[in-house]
Amino acid sequence: IRFKRASVFQQGTKVIKKPKSCPGTQPSMLNVHLVPHTHDDVGWLKTVDQYYYGDRNDIQHAGVQYILDSVVEQLQKDPARRFIYVETGFFYRWWRQQDQAMRHIVTQLVDEGRLEFINGGWCMSDEAATHYTAVIDQMTLGLRFLNETFGECGRPRVAWHIDPFGHAREHASIFAQMGYDGLFFGRLDYQDKARRMKTKEMEMLWRASDSLTPPMADLFTGVLPNGYNPPDGFCWDQLCNDAPIRDDPQLEDFNVDDIVKRFLNVAHAQSEVYKTTHIIMTMGSDFQYENANLWYKNLDKLIHYVNAKQSNGSKVNLLYSTPSCYLQELHNANTTWPLKTDDFFPYADDAHDFWTGYFTSRPALKRYERLSNSRLQTCNQLEVLGGRRSRKGLFGEGGSDSMREAMAVAQHHDAVSGTEKQHVAFDYAKRLAAGWGPCQVLVSNSLAALSGSDAPRVYCENLNISVCPLTESSPKFTMNVYNPLGHAVMWPVRLPVNGTAYGVFDAKGSPVDSASREVRGHKGYAINELVFQVQAPPLGFTTYSISLLQNGPPPTPLENKAPLSIQNKFLKVTFDPDTYLLSSLSNLETKQTIKLSQNFYWYNASAGNNAESRQPSGAYIFRPNSSTPFIISKMIKVDSVKNAVLQEVRQWFGPWVTQVVRLYKDSRQLELEWTVGPVPVGDGLGKEVITRFDTNIRTSGLFYTDSNGREVLERRRDYRPTWDLKQTEPIAGNYYPINSRAYIKDKDNQLTVVTDRSQGGSSIADGSLEIMLHRRLLYDDVRGVGEPLSEPGEDGQGGLVARGTLLLALTPPEKAADLHRPLAQSVTWSSLRLFSGLHAALPPAVHLLTLSQWDRESVLIRLEHQYQAKESKSFSEPVTVNLQKLFSTLEIVGATEMSLGANQWKDQMTRLDWKTSSGECGGKKIEGISLHYSIKIQALCWHCADHPLEEQIYNELCPVTNL
Amino acid sequence: IRFKRASVFQQGTKVIKKPKSCPGTQPSMLNVHLVPHTHDDVGWLKTVDQYYYGDRNDIQHAGVQYILDSVVEQLQKDPARRFIYVETGFFYRWWRQQDQAMRHIVTQLVDEGRLEFINGGWCMSDEAATHYTAVIDQMTLGLRFLNETFGECGRPRVAWHIDPFGHAREHASIFAQMGYDGLFFGRLDYQDKARRMKTKEMEMLWRASDSLTPPMADLFTGVLPNGYNPPDGFCWDQLCNDAPIRDDPQLEDFNVDDIVKRFLNVAHAQSEVYKTTHIIMTMGSDFQYENANLWYKNLDKLIHYVNAKQSNGSKVNLLYSTPSCYLQELHNANTTWPLKTDDFFPYADDAHDFWTGYFTSRPALKRYERLSNSRLQTCNQLEVLGGRRSRKGLFGEGGSDSMREAMAVAQHHDAVSGTEKQHVAFDYAKRLAAGWGPCQVLVSNSLAALSGSDAPRVYCENLNISVCPLTESSPKFTMNVYNPLGHAVMWPVRLPVNGTAYGVFDAKGSPVDSASREVRGHKGYAINELVFQVQAPPLGFTTYSISLLQNGPPPTPLENKAPLSIQNKFLKVTFDPDTYLLSSLSNLETKQTIKLSQNFYWYNASAGNNAESRQPSGAYIFRPNSSTPFIISKMIKVDSVKNAVLQEVRQWFGPWVTQVVRLYKDSRQLELEWTVGPVPVGDGLGKEVITRFDTNIRTSGLFYTDSNGREVLERRRDYRPTWDLKQTEPIAGNYYPINSRAYIKDKDNQLTVVTDRSQGGSSIADGSLEIMLHRRLLYDDVRGVGEPLSEPGEDGQGGLVARGTLLLALTPPEKAADLHRPLAQSVTWSSLRLFSGLHAALPPAVHLLTLSQWDRESVLIRLEHQYQAKESKSFSEPVTVNLQKLFSTLEIVGATEMSLGANQWKDQMTRLDWKTSSGECGGKKIEGISLHYSIKIQALCWHCADHPLEEQIYNELCPVTNL
Repeated sequence: IRFKRASVFQQGTKVIKKPKSCPGTQPSMLNVHLVPHTHDDVGWLKTVDQYYYGDRNDIQHAGVQYILDSVVEQLQKDPARRFIYVETGFFYRWWRQQDQAMRHIVTQLVDEGRLEFINGGWCMSDEAATHYTAVIDQMTLGLRFLNETFGECGRPRVAWHIDPFGHAREHASIFAQMGYDGLFFGRLDYQDKARRMKTKEMEMLWRASDSLTPPMADLFTGVLPNGYNPPDGFCWDQLCNDAPIRDDPQLEDFNVDDIVKRFLNVAHAQSEVYKTTHIIMTMGSDFQYENANLWYKNLDKLIHYVNAKQSNGSKVNLLYSTPSCYLQELHNANTTWPLKTDDFFPYADDAHDFWTGYFTSRPALKRYERLSNSRLQTCNQLEVLGGRRSRKGLFGEGGSDSMREAMAVAQHHDAVSGTEKQHVAFDYAKRLAAGWGPCQVLVSNSLAALSGSDAPRVYCENLNISVCPLTESSPKFTMNVYNPLGHAVMWPVRLPVNGTAYGVFDAKGSPVDSASREVRGHKGYAINELVFQVQAPPLGFTTYSISLLQNGPPPTPLENKAPLSIQNKFLKVTFDPDTYLLSSLSNLETKQTIKLSQNFYWYNASAGNNAESRQPSGAYIFRPNSSTPFIISKMIKVDSVKNAVLQEVRQWFGPWVTQVVRLYKDSRQLELEWTVGPVPVGDGLGKEVITRFDTNIRTSGLFYTDSNGREVLERRRDYRPTWDLKQTEPIAGNYYPINSRAYIKDKDNQLTVVTDRSQGGSSIADGSLEIMLHRRLLYDDVRGVGEPLSEPGEDGQGGLVARGTLLLALTPPEKAADLHRPLAQSVTWSSLRLFSGLHAALPPAVHLLTLSQWDRESVLIRLEHQYQAKESKSFSEPVTVNLQKLFSTLEIVGATEMSLGANQWKDQMTRLDWKTSSGECGGKKIEGISLHYSIKIQALCWHCADHPLEEQIYNELCPVTNL
Repeated sequence: IRFKRASVFQQGTKVIKKPKSCPGTQPSMLNVHLVPHTHDDVGWLKTVDQYYYGDRNDIQHAGVQYILDSVVEQLQKDPARRFIYVETGFFYRWWRQQDQAMRHIVTQLVDEGRLEFINGGWCMSDEAATHYTAVIDQMTLGLRFLNETFGECGRPRVAWHIDPFGHAREHASIFAQMGYDGLFFGRLDYQDKARRMKTKEMEMLWRASDSLTPPMADLFTGVLPNGYNPPDGFCWDQLCNDAPIRDDPQLEDFNVDDIVKRFLNVAHAQSEVYKTTHIIMTMGSDFQYENANLWYKNLDKLIHYVNAKQSNGSKVNLLYSTPSCYLQELHNANTTWPLKTDDFFPYADDAHDFWTGYFTSRPALKRYERLSNSRLQTCNQLEVLGGRRSRKGLFGEGGSDSMREAMAVAQHHDAVSGTEKQHVAFDYAKRLAAGWGPCQVLVSNSLAALSGSDAPRVYCENLNISVCPLTESSPKFTMNVYNPLGHAVMWPVRLPVNGTAYGVFDAKGSPVDSASREVRGHKGYAINELVFQVQAPPLGFTTYSISLLQNGPPPTPLENKAPLSIQNKFLKVTFDPDTYLLSSLSNLETKQTIKLSQNFYWYNASAGNNAESRQPSGAYIFRPNSSTPFIISKMIKVDSVKNAVLQEVRQWFGPWVTQVVRLYKDSRQLELEWTVGPVPVGDGLGKEVITRFDTNIRTSGLFYTDSNGREVLERRRDYRPTWDLKQTEPIAGNYYPINSRAYIKDKDNQLTVVTDRSQGGSSIADGSLEIMLHRRLLYDDVRGVGEPLSEPGEDGQGGLVARGTLLLALTPPEKAADLHRPLAQSVTWSSLRLFSGLHAALPPAVHLLTLSQWDRESVLIRLEHQYQAKESKSFSEPVTVNLQKLFSTLEIVGATEMSLGANQWKDQMTRLDWKTSSGECGGKKIEGISLHYSIKIQALCWHCADHPLEEQIYNELCPVTNL
């Protein structure tokens, strides 16, 4: 194959470089960059479409269609005016409704830098509850639209995460690799901010990866002076009540002198805490600029009257600007910047106000989002593998667009975060469900095309509550299993059935071990569950045939006595004979054992009525009113089952907490399937439910949590790496987000927990690891959502029941990654259906991050080295992939290397270089943050290398660097 | 003199007739005229300038500058769009701030009828508490600006009183005489509205004068369907929460079908209660269109989608329109209309919700407004009489503009009405006081120029509380008295002094009777008051010299006993020997006597907590919780004084109600000076204080009140002339506004009460007449003002003390007008300082309504026949005025006849003709509503005749027609 740029990719893009449009500044003065902006939540108190249209203004006055109408109108009035727009999900909706004349006007404004896109993803994603795969997808969706619509002038240079409640290092890493030159945000710990203001460290260089060679993941990062709001007294939006500039001397209350004086005071005060002679002010806020005239009319006057003072010797210069113009000036200042290597979690805005509740809020939505992510990947892949007949085929018109957009919206920082109103949470879920509709058609079409079988397929959506009418009633059925991973993985399958014994056969007709056992508390018609393990080929599907052998009750009734232990060839778990709780875990291969006890507890959520602070727990904020959680039950009831496929101990902790401890025959991890809810609140106490593992591992205050499912960061109790923490909330102040895994370890033992969704967790005592599973609260936490977090149950009342699994692994620390990396991927990218798309499995270290139809003639592929530097002796090493031979149904005719966001040719991507105060780093121009192969394919080998592209393509190599 | 049009008057006006710009309609369909409009209160919850700038949006979101910015912007986007603007006081502020380019755009929009001025006065005046002179002035101020700025295309054709709380017949008469073709309003009695809807009488011809020959005061009048709001569910302003039209099928909640269906239902329902195939909908409301895009974008869609149904047979046609275009279509319908001859007072919007409290609310503001009106007339006149040196003279730069604008603003229906927030009431008063500043300078300049004396003049502003440092401390001083009336009038003067005896001499040096007597409860240094009567020449000033003869306490100490009677040569008053209250009144000239008792009472204001209704009394609404008022005191304390000038009986009813019964030597009326306040509310009861006169006059349920100080209307208890009243509030439902006078009569006796401000009053029992003087309330009445009406006292706390006078006259009915007409004028136009401007006094029937500098070379004069038809045998007759010889300092070189609003040549004024259902009337074109002479003068002879203009000028005649 020859390296060439796929011409189709350029469709709609312009590569004419426009002259820099940044406004002039005054070198000898303090330059105040006024940045008009709006912050448009892609759903929060209203649904995304309610926000777009300005519907339900009784809930919140906000209408994005009008914001864009108005801003475009006002920008035309004066070429000096600037505006930035952030959320492409909204902009896309608006653009579709504009006529050619308006599109032309907007394009010109973009070309001239008067309207600038910033961030540019579909939404401004949450950083604590998102998985990196979905973040990359949502960014790509937005950036692609901008690229195809506006070309280079529409490409964001600055990441703008002004609202998310804490900042993940992985997000910074992704932004760096997507070619962004800087990141600005608004929220960080109040102690951190105070220190940074004192030491002028509000702006810094963030080194956002342990694995990637600097400056690959280095990102200039600025903390905005006032969140993302204008200075007090200078908010001129229709949503604000600040006095307008009243400059007509014939009318009452002429206030120009007062306004100018107050503004100069603000500007001077701000310049005291920043390094350069440039400062930035965010002139806007949530859903502002619906009537942009108010803002611009007063800003025009402000600039005029403040700058008029220059003739009297004032040294303050105001200008309309944008974050990228401001960033350019910082870069031109040619100074050094402090280096940051940890992250910005947890976020507290006051001593008792830790935003660590939302790490867990709405656990069911968080799981549904993760499941949907897996479905989107499957949908994407089968669209590629099945070819054109996937979109329009035997079962009608299918597609991945709705699912992609629904997932992109769900990444918003008030979506998967769980901090939206209930009706909006329902809307997100509805969108995901609706998105899955066309994907189901697409998958059916694709499977039909690939398998040649036109049998209609049934999707059982309620397996989580053991409901599937087909399997419950059919004496004979087949099951397709699709594996979206590049490796073969074994998944357990549990199907609701009414028979006692079934024959299960794989695609070759070989029998598969299976067992049927009683369903406890079944919701549907099924009294039993049929259990077996399946394996599908890499990036392909297989078919299992199941036929009823015997009807009636399950062959082995449940035992009401607890076993003292369960084990397979890899693991042994023991239980306390008195309490029936877990007591130890052993890895039989490595012959290591730890003491391990586990129970469920609830923190009593603060009602906001104690002396220290009026802050209650809410959707955002976790604040227990005591550091000692209440135990659900010291003694539990159990029953158990054991058959050829698995051993289960079912633990009953009380009417609203149960758990199944499950060990499959061939599994190296222990599965704990927890069920929590409806959490009772009849006692007037809000409850935040955790499970806690207590071990004899000597953790010395350390524990580990992942960042957006990618790299893992070390955490230390009551400690922050960059400032002398004054801990004011011993529990909530030690909580961190867990997106896919957390672990504790000492030199011998590492206990890793892999989660099936994002959750909050901590290690409050040495040897202990706790994970918050569910929350039900009685008070709003006064951060705007205006509702207590109390999700209704299935009947619209009561409380929501949440169910999930934690996978436990015990290994030596140096072998932990070999297990948890593939395990977490298989949890995140779960299976669905046979045709081997890959000629061969990918090497174990490589994850097929993206396989997605780009347009009719090209495909986007991202390959990822899934291990972190040094974490695995076996796999944290360069690895070779034969890209050409990878796909059986694709003829690869060319490849183009792209940025991570797929909105730029990699070799055209340049980023600003920054000096740190320690003199580190400072490469002039960053080459090859990532590799992106495009063939009839645009592909990316992520976390790979910066080797010359052509060489790699010809060599078909994708080595991991610096590992 | 030759009749000619003063060329200066045409300055800035355009007389090019533009083609009619009304949109096309569909003759075979129901045409729905959608009228985009904003209703911008010239002060209410915020001050007028706060509203203009959009300041204090915490109180109410409203910014008129942005409304006009936005509407002009949006009108440019589509020539089909229309907008009407009403309040010239606001438009003027905005216009001044616009550059030439914007002015050009706006002028073009006006020329094309896309922006249409409606009503066009400085404000939308109140109808219950205003005096006709001030209404004409404020209308003239606004219309003049429109005329000079936009010429004919800016001239309003329609009066638009959508918000005032009841409608005065005199207002309709004024509008007719100003050349308006129609009046639309929103508020009328709910029973009246229900009946009119049933009988399709929502639109009518209002015959608004008993005196003027029809159709001179005939005015087409329409009741709007929904107040001035859009139909429920179709409000798309940023202040509304109705669902926008969501017409993108790719987004959630597509609602076009639902919206169209609902709209068609509304339109059909509305067409059921109107006569023609045209209906009007007011698409806007208070301070709407600040972001006009929201409205127009959705209206565009509404029109598009509803009219699209025509292709499926729908017979409903939507169009952007204006009231004048709608009116034109009604006129074209060539049908007949019901005739209305009474007025629309009182206004009730529910059974217990009578808006009759504001007739009296804020009595001190109402008096200050009336006093300011007098000052403005004086200022206007002296500006003319003193020539150029008035504006810029010995005492600096003076002017009448501020006073004129302050008075214009004070006419607003939330200004003099008393229905504004307290801080806004203060602002109105402040403006009036500030306006008086330049007028004082002008008056001083003018007097200096006219008299040749450059002595500095002191204005004693606190005579109402017996404070004037100059008179209190000077042993010798002079006093100028200016008489703004065209006739000589005698006024009593009371000056605070500390001497016992003074010599008072008139301008010729002749001594004048005077007396000094003790001040009760004096506030300043003065212990005595010097009393004498003054007379100034018509439209001129005179000087009195006062010198101290003897210091010390007053010569005649107060008597602590009540006299049994007081009398002069005209009147005799007797007092009850037991209660000391008034017992009879006699006219000694006509030898008639009536029993007359008087006392003060208070109605207990409803707190809104009774079973019938939750409506409390408030700034707007009067609702006593019992029909029986509480008496202040059955027995009173008195003292009295009698001297050469007057006799006084001072009555003490209690700690917060006192009265002085005063009879001057040469007076035909009895003066009752009441002082009420601070009204105590410590008992938790709101109080509405009245005084009531009970007589033996056989009134048979009838009583009489004036309309805006001009014509008098008959009232009948528990009765409305146009529908079968169901009386639900026996007190409040019988209250009517009294602007200058009220009377009761039988065939022999008429008791007339002349008031010094607007008040509410009624006759609840035969022979009885009550007037509400003051109100202090504890609850808001839920009509938006959001404050209980409880005015603070001087110290900002406590309650406000109000003081005023009622003048009582007893006459035969047929002679009453001869007394009350000049009396009311002298009360309204009180005196201020010598130089006879008039060569001769005007005939008694003629009032010099306006003498005001128009521009450097012309003067506006309005002459008015002040009598109503048939009310006076002596004066309700044609009268001749020698205009040429009237003014001593003016050389009259030409005169032009104008409309009453002075915005149009009278001979160019044409109005639409209308047919009534009884077949009455219907003159094709109305000629000469009024006469308007312009010389170096633009003059108007109002309530005069429609004789040919030139003839009148040569004949110098101004006869009253139809009297």
